[in-house]
Amino acid sequence: MSDLKQRALDYHAFPRPGKLSVESSKPCTTQSDLSLAYTPGVAEPVREIHRDPANAYRYTNKGNLVAVITDGTAVLGLGDMGALASKPVMEGKAVLFKRFAGIDVFDIEINAPSVEAFIETVVNIAPTFGGINLEDIAAPHCFRIEKELRERLDIPVFHDDQHGTAVIVAAGLLNALELQGKQLNQVNIVFLGAGAAGCACARLLKVMGAQHITMVDRSGVLYGQRDDLHDMNRDLARDTDARTLEDVMPGADVFIGVSAANALAPDLLKLMAAKPIVFALANPDPEILPVQAHAVRDDLIMATGRSDFPNQVNNVLGFPFLFRGALDARARQISIAMQIAASRALAELARLPVPQEVLDAYKLDALEFGKEYIIPKPFDPRLLEHVAGAVARAAVAQA
Amino acid sequence: MSDLKQRALDYHAFPRPGKLSVESSKPCTTQSDLSLAYTPGVAEPVREIHRDPANAYRYTNKGNLVAVITDGTAVLGLGDMGALASKPVMEGKAVLFKRFAGIDVFDIEINAPSVEAFIETVVNIAPTFGGINLEDIAAPHCFRIEKELRERLDIPVFHDDQHGTAVIVAAGLLNALELQGKQLNQVNIVFLGAGAAGCACARLLKVMGAQHITMVDRSGVLYGQRDDLHDMNRDLARDTDARTLEDVMPGADVFIGVSAANALAPDLLKLMAAKPIVFALANPDPEILPVQAHAVRDDLIMATGRSDFPNQVNNVLGFPFLFRGALDARARQISIAMQIAASRALAELARLPVPQEVLDAYKLDALEFGKEYIIPKPFDPRLLEHVAGAVARAAVAQA
Repeated sequence: MSDLKQRALDYHAFPRPGKLSVESSKPCTTQSDLSLAYTPGVAEPVREIHRDPANAYRYTNKGNLVAVITDGTAVLGLGDMGALASKPVMEGKAVLFKRFAGIDVFDIEINAPSVEAFIETVVNIAPTFGGINLEDIAAPHCFRIEKELRERLDIPVFHDDQHGTAVIVAAGLLNALELQGKQLNQVNIVFLGAGAAGCACARLLKVMGAQHITMVDRSGVLYGQRDDLHDMNRDLARDTDARTLEDVMPGADVFIGVSAANALAPDLLKLMAAKPIVFALANPDPEILPVQAHAVRDDLIMATGRSDFPNQVNNVLGFPFLFRGALDARARQISIAMQIAASRALAELARLPVPQEVLDAYKLDALEFGKEYIIPKPFDPRLLEHVAGAVARAAVAQA
Repeated sequence: MSDLKQRALDYHAFPRPGKLSVESSKPCTTQSDLSLAYTPGVAEPVREIHRDPANAYRYTNKGNLVAVITDGTAVLGLGDMGALASKPVMEGKAVLFKRFAGIDVFDIEINAPSVEAFIETVVNIAPTFGGINLEDIAAPHCFRIEKELRERLDIPVFHDDQHGTAVIVAAGLLNALELQGKQLNQVNIVFLGAGAAGCACARLLKVMGAQHITMVDRSGVLYGQRDDLHDMNRDLARDTDARTLEDVMPGADVFIGVSAANALAPDLLKLMAAKPIVFALANPDPEILPVQAHAVRDDLIMATGRSDFPNQVNNVLGFPFLFRGALDARARQISIAMQIAASRALAELARLPVPQEVLDAYKLDALEFGKEYIIPKPFDPRLLEHVAGAVARAAVAQA
């Protein structure tokens, strides 16, 4: 077993299993403390919440508590591992929520007999929470789950694999376009991969102004007459005679891969327009490695999902701050406007001078806005105020 | 508003709402830490759990994580307050689980359209947890919920309002009987109140050897031909001509009230056998106040649910240690044998000399086994090892 694998197992197992601890946030050592935390004192906040449900935000954890919920059908790149086996990932997500935005998370792994039962389960436990982060749920049922939960619940429901990814991709793309001297509404964008993440990215970019997007999946280009489209990707199909990736890559300005390792041949990269942009986001092995890509195109800007290459598209730049902003504004949803606000705030932050503590965290001498730094680094302490603040302002502006 | 009420509201509201905080229990400051807690390292425990579900106990919080679950239909003595308003109580229960037994708790408030939907919801989220503590669910649907969940799940399911109360009552009664020189299998026991707690107490005492129990509820004695009995209390009905509390109190050795304030008239207490035992557990106001009871009977042993009187029957003496023992032994249920082991361990502990730190915690000069000390004090640090150990040994012995 590799060193990383063994270290990861040890990290999870010792000194005690798991990664979370639920602690009391109030004094609880004396009998007097406990008479406030539990009976008889606790009756009073109960009465107050019964009188006005909004008081749950004053007297309980609800307003800072997010459920990270999965059915385990699309765990990382591992596929359908089931609810139980996904638990380490969901606990990890809880660690990130706390570390980056101070948000308390209960991870909930659901083993339901049907999509309907999954939805009912989430609706039934929703009073517990101030927000719901759906995670690692396979397409296409993730679309239906999110849509129905958003309609039925009065708290934010957010499928991070879709919209979290979209927010970071859009942020990086805004900066890459700026550096390449291109306009979002003019560029030809090719998506390889039309699953949850790809569709959400394409849809967010359209709202932000993109006008020329072609989606390609395993069966080729999504064109209007294809008979295997479903409700959640039909709106992204184009009226075109193009059928393959090879048909659409010549002249493309932007390639966004959310597909599989080595899915982009260097020969196709050669055919792209001048100053191309390649986001190769398959993880851990991207559609094309940076070293291969730069070998055939020296006018390229490239991003991947990997932390060991420049320009990591990392969801941790999004979800903690999207929820922080939403919870702080007590927004009932994480709207498109709030997502766009997060994207623009992220893009803006990457253009600002980098403080010394960020350089120290990454053991770097310098970091400057440019082809190898289009997206902020996760350990940039300015993210919380900058991005969550923008999200909260967008929430308030639309309310 | 009384001082306690205002202090309780302040305690819940400041400096931040609620009483719980979910913390990372592993290092999570550097990028290297996060590569173990989340991608890519987290994939390895996922694979290991997928390979063998038992590995969830090695690599996740499951084995130390209990869900405290309610529908809010019987919150404290307040009645049906609804799921949301019950949240402060469930968070308080989480505080107690952690404080007394180091167990992590997620409080889950369920607002389901039916009892069936409640059950399905709990079954669906069960992979998340190592045990389920049902709380503040009204009778009679609490009986059906617990029964079905116990049958369908492979983790301990425990309705604390029933069995937790029963364990403490049995412990106190064992010691009171000893002090009064009576035998459990010979005494006449009258229960006033035949709800969840009363039925569970009566049933546990029967298993432990009690042979003469009469249940009385608002409609009077539970006799065999009564037409309003249900599946969960029919087994406790007696073949008798007695119809009222007044009919059954003369000559009774033990009165256990789980009913309402002032439900036991002093005149009835006068009619009990010599050396009677009265557990007046209605909260906050007992069936009879100790001062009233002692005024008419000086040969009495009395317990209440109140911390400001001697002999508090307090569930915190049970559930933390029952779950600690069950989790440590990885028991699939909290069996009757484990409950009896907890009762006997509690009774035994009250007979041992009290260490100085317990006296200090309660600002007492002395505390000795006797009429005013038949049940251990919650802040007795010996409880964890003594009671949880006994529970775990009972679990192992029956496995």
